[in-house]
Amino acid sequence: MKIFDRPGFPNPARIRIVLAEKGLDSQINFVSVDLIGAEHKQAEFLEKNPSGVLPVLQLDDGTYIAECTAITEYLDNLDGDPRLTGRTPKEKALIHMMQRRAEAELLDAVGNYFHHATPGLGTALQAFKSPAWEGRKDWGDRQREKALGGLRYFDNVLKDSPFIAGDHFSLADITVYAGLMFGDAAGITIPDDHAALKTWRETVSEIPSVKNRSGQAFGSEDLRRLGF
Amino acid sequence: MKIFDRPGFPNPARIRIVLAEKGLDSQINFVSVDLIGAEHKQAEFLEKNPSGVLPVLQLDDGTYIAECTAITEYLDNLDGDPRLTGRTPKEKALIHMMQRRAEAELLDAVGNYFHHATPGLGTALQAFKSPAWEGRKDWGDRQREKALGGLRYFDNVLKDSPFIAGDHFSLADITVYAGLMFGDAAGITIPDDHAALKTWRETVSEIPSVKNRSGQAFGSEDLRRLGF
Repeated sequence: MKIFDRPGFPNPARIRIVLAEKGLDSQINFVSVDLIGAEHKQAEFLEKNPSGVLPVLQLDDGTYIAECTAITEYLDNLDGDPRLTGRTPKEKALIHMMQRRAEAELLDAVGNYFHHATPGLGTALQAFKSPAWEGRKDWGDRQREKALGGLRYFDNVLKDSPFIAGDHFSLADITVYAGLMFGDAAGITIPDDHAALKTWRETVSEIPSVKNRSGQAFGSEDLRRLGF
Repeated sequence: MKIFDRPGFPNPARIRIVLAEKGLDSQINFVSVDLIGAEHKQAEFLEKNPSGVLPVLQLDDGTYIAECTAITEYLDNLDGDPRLTGRTPKEKALIHMMQRRAEAELLDAVGNYFHHATPGLGTALQAFKSPAWEGRKDWGDRQREKALGGLRYFDNVLKDSPFIAGDHFSLADITVYAGLMFGDAAGITIPDDHAALKTWRETVSEIPSVKNRSGQAFGSEDLRRLGF
């Protein structure tokens, strides 16, 4: 199998954590995509994923799978023990609900703020994200408020639950973790009074699949190129 | 089990089709939510689903499940034969990928256009959707272009495939169908040259689970109240 991605960014990180959790790293050839140069918005990449986002999994039969949830469903079900996406109907439902909420209320909100209310990752990519981003700034700023609401919501969830979707580490935790990682880069950090969320983050950071991957700081190599 | 929803709207329709497909209609008590009056944006409903959207499934143990994908995962896996969300890892991956694409490129794009570039469903609800919607009109209009791009994409998919995610009717077809239903109401209809998409729609409209439900025109009762 191949993964087209770019290490150090939130969505690629989600799948690298899944691969490590499932012990599948060694079965993957990673192909690096020039995210800053907007390679994923060009025709050759759009053949693989018309939505123009990373990462993309290519199966050995040539099939391309995009969208982190879909890639995770594939990898998590290969061994017949889908503990990241849920074993029972109720587990599956709670995990999918919380993972979708984590995308909408946190990860995507942070991304919208970053790409619409800040200069984002530079001019090559920004043209595909937010034409005339200055004009969208008020909308982007409201996305920041939305992301802060997401942090508050997940802090409340974690007051009553060890993980985002119940008693076990799951896809939903991975999405929230990626949201926090993106938040750090965008300047949306966990408020001091969100103790449950902070404790959860410390716990999750120590899980081997997460710890091994998180040595890679957000976009470190690429951001140096941009002069950040 | 209970479903909190409003018949005649796209997201409630998605789950009603799933219920009919799985033969579960008779096990559900439906509770009607005043969507036009923004009942789903009030504190009592937000206890059930903090995202403030319909539908919500309540299990017999009291657990609330929101998000159509999560509700579908639950209902589809109850009988141990998840044909709407996929039986194999590859089926699951392709269905989740295409269903997410159908949300992002079609259903959500239509919804964003409808709520941000038109008067939407009236003043009570609109306050929660797009404060000062006139100012957002250019953004909303770009969402219309995105939805038209989605229609073109799915037309292309259906030139090579009988259904959205392969050889069988699935969650992904249901999402596209709901997107077309919402598009009709918002004035975003299938262009004449999208023959594959039109043929698919005719085929899907005749599937009993879809046909039984689609006698309910978009928001008919509620739109009469609004004087449309």
